[in-house]
Amino acid sequence: MPHIDPERLLSDLRDLRSIGAQGKGVVRPAFSPKDMEARGWLKGRYEEAGLDATIDGVGNVIGRSRNPGKALLVGSHSDTQPTGGWLDGALGVIYGLEVVRALAADDATCHLAVDAVSFQDEESRFMGCLGSRSLTGTLSQEMEQRAVDHRGVTLAEALREAGLAGVPRQRLAPGRYAGFVEAHIEQGPDLEDSGRKIGVVSSIVGLRGIRFAFRGQQNHAGTTMMARRRDAASALYELAHRINQEFPQAAGERTVWTMGRLRIEPNAPSIVPGYAELDLQFRDASEAPLDAFEKIVARLVADMNARGGVSIEAVPSRTPIPPTRMDAGLQEHIARAAERHAPGRWQHMPSGAFHDAGYVSASLPSAMLFIPSIGGISHDFAEDSRDEDIVLGCQVLADAVASILAAANAAPGRNP
Amino acid sequence: MPHIDPERLLSDLRDLRSIGAQGKGVVRPAFSPKDMEARGWLKGRYEEAGLDATIDGVGNVIGRSRNPGKALLVGSHSDTQPTGGWLDGALGVIYGLEVVRALAADDATCHLAVDAVSFQDEESRFMGCLGSRSLTGTLSQEMEQRAVDHRGVTLAEALREAGLAGVPRQRLAPGRYAGFVEAHIEQGPDLEDSGRKIGVVSSIVGLRGIRFAFRGQQNHAGTTMMARRRDAASALYELAHRINQEFPQAAGERTVWTMGRLRIEPNAPSIVPGYAELDLQFRDASEAPLDAFEKIVARLVADMNARGGVSIEAVPSRTPIPPTRMDAGLQEHIARAAERHAPGRWQHMPSGAFHDAGYVSASLPSAMLFIPSIGGISHDFAEDSRDEDIVLGCQVLADAVASILAAANAAPGRNP
Repeated sequence: MPHIDPERLLSDLRDLRSIGAQGKGVVRPAFSPKDMEARGWLKGRYEEAGLDATIDGVGNVIGRSRNPGKALLVGSHSDTQPTGGWLDGALGVIYGLEVVRALAADDATCHLAVDAVSFQDEESRFMGCLGSRSLTGTLSQEMEQRAVDHRGVTLAEALREAGLAGVPRQRLAPGRYAGFVEAHIEQGPDLEDSGRKIGVVSSIVGLRGIRFAFRGQQNHAGTTMMARRRDAASALYELAHRINQEFPQAAGERTVWTMGRLRIEPNAPSIVPGYAELDLQFRDASEAPLDAFEKIVARLVADMNARGGVSIEAVPSRTPIPPTRMDAGLQEHIARAAERHAPGRWQHMPSGAFHDAGYVSASLPSAMLFIPSIGGISHDFAEDSRDEDIVLGCQVLADAVASILAAANAAPGRNP
Repeated sequence: MPHIDPERLLSDLRDLRSIGAQGKGVVRPAFSPKDMEARGWLKGRYEEAGLDATIDGVGNVIGRSRNPGKALLVGSHSDTQPTGGWLDGALGVIYGLEVVRALAADDATCHLAVDAVSFQDEESRFMGCLGSRSLTGTLSQEMEQRAVDHRGVTLAEALREAGLAGVPRQRLAPGRYAGFVEAHIEQGPDLEDSGRKIGVVSSIVGLRGIRFAFRGQQNHAGTTMMARRRDAASALYELAHRINQEFPQAAGERTVWTMGRLRIEPNAPSIVPGYAELDLQFRDASEAPLDAFEKIVARLVADMNARGGVSIEAVPSRTPIPPTRMDAGLQEHIARAAERHAPGRWQHMPSGAFHDAGYVSASLPSAMLFIPSIGGISHDFAEDSRDEDIVLGCQVLADAVASILAAANAAPGRNP
């Protein structure tokens, strides 16, 4: 079995952190100079590890093994949130690099083909999981033309500025891969709370979004009597509160919903708001509670619209993401490696956050491995994990990768 | 009895409208070049009408009668909202000018002393009713130093730019006045709805404000289970909705409340909000419902805080404005004039909006006269009133002013 090098692993993670570091956090949004610098650095590291490395036309860094046989794709993303933590994405990327090196250094595994990858723009500067969509062929020209960041920069402009205009884009080589494995920090508190060290991800939760528009009548807050008002904000308060009261009855144990973004117009203390907008987002690993929520929403909206006054319109705010099951065979390899290195201290669990593996799973058998996040914090400068957890997770991944590839190449033509 | 000149009145109103006109509306915020141009124009009109006119050090335009005896101050404000209507303030200002001219042209009233005024910044660019506060001596240096507009311009800078730095400020001459009368558009729909032409204002409603701060914990909307959340926005929705459910039980017929301004952080669909803020404003012509509302708020906040999770803090968001009664004697003069010109088509009514008369009433017997607003619309480019209603209101005001001054000067030393 391969042995990872803890010092080398932590040192590479810290080197990557230094590119765009701000305080304890990292600012390395997709296509920014720091992001492109990190991708250049990573390409060099892939080459030192013996891989044929390229940065493709959307910024994906791909290191291809020269070994024959079925390969495994291992990695995550190296772009960050606008004010991000140092491990979100970066952990899985450096794990991929370290796994390549660990397998190459062991006589029993040096013949196995591991490709390493760092996807571009998982964090949605232009489009969530841009890089994995591109690699798997699900990025349409139309989506690309619509892609604009929150400052109005277009994706085409960002590509040009990053020197990627006209650079070829890679696609998954047909038949090359036995699968994809992505390691990530949990970004939640469950592993830490239960004292467990490894999460074997069973599924990535589905996500739907509804945007409500409330149309009333803007008025003077002193001279418009209550009975005459059509107050868009008061309708918003009522609907949001009733959603919070009714959803628990239809929710599963891990269903979540959030109304975290709104807007009211003109947003002045002395003016009855004439327009308001509210985003509702809800997630679960199965479709049933999501369907039930949509029914509740439709009933509440119909009920309030029947009263007159403010009119409420509910439309999908995004393309729904269906719940995605991770490959059972790959999960089994990770679970066995976890049991070997952390006996009794691992668990199957869904991922509440979305990941590149969600897109890749439509093309390849895919799996994910989580390590604990301190305090469950992520998307924040304070995001962190313990060194020993980082090291343990990488060792589990290396064992799992070796075991997946050994099985895939022992039974050629079959998935592991 | 004096006769106003409808053509001259409407023509002056339209001339004033042309200074800062944008479409159907007017953009003439306090101290802007257009506002100062309008004040210069008005000073000229006051002088043509035989008044000694000045623009004082805060921008109040004051036209002083040369006639002896008790005087009446008549006017309103000529500054507008950032995107205002053409009659809010302007109507009462031009009424004052026309009343001066009408009384001067009539042998029976030409000896009476009417002073005309256009106050500065009633619309709160720096401070609501800045001009009437200054004239009545309730503007402190400290308030003035804190006064900043929403772009960060200080009042001192605006005064300098308007050429008013160092210009003397006028105060009410002690003993000069029998009172103050302000005419205004209603800014609400009551007169129009009831087919009435004149409102005799009985009181200006009191106003209180509470700002709620909700402190929770910002989290990832996918990985933070519902039971662990401390969602500041959900607490806001609940409190706002419960306020809307409970206030009607304590409200009077014309009590109003508004939650028209809020903020949630970070206001993103995928993040559980960690902080939220909500402004509640409530108004009534008597203190009782306002006191009752404060008790309800205190109970709801205590109830929600006792549950833990999100903590709610409630603090006054502004200095309360107590309800102000208009002078009964002055109201009687206006009511008699209204009955003469619009028999059975006038009413006593409270003002839901605040006005300069609210401040002046602390120093002088004060009264207000309303004319109908089409559709109740104001603070909007669409604000308008019918020409015949404008003319009728001015004639009623002229009669009332003549009658007030006749009474005041018939019984010297006593209020009318």
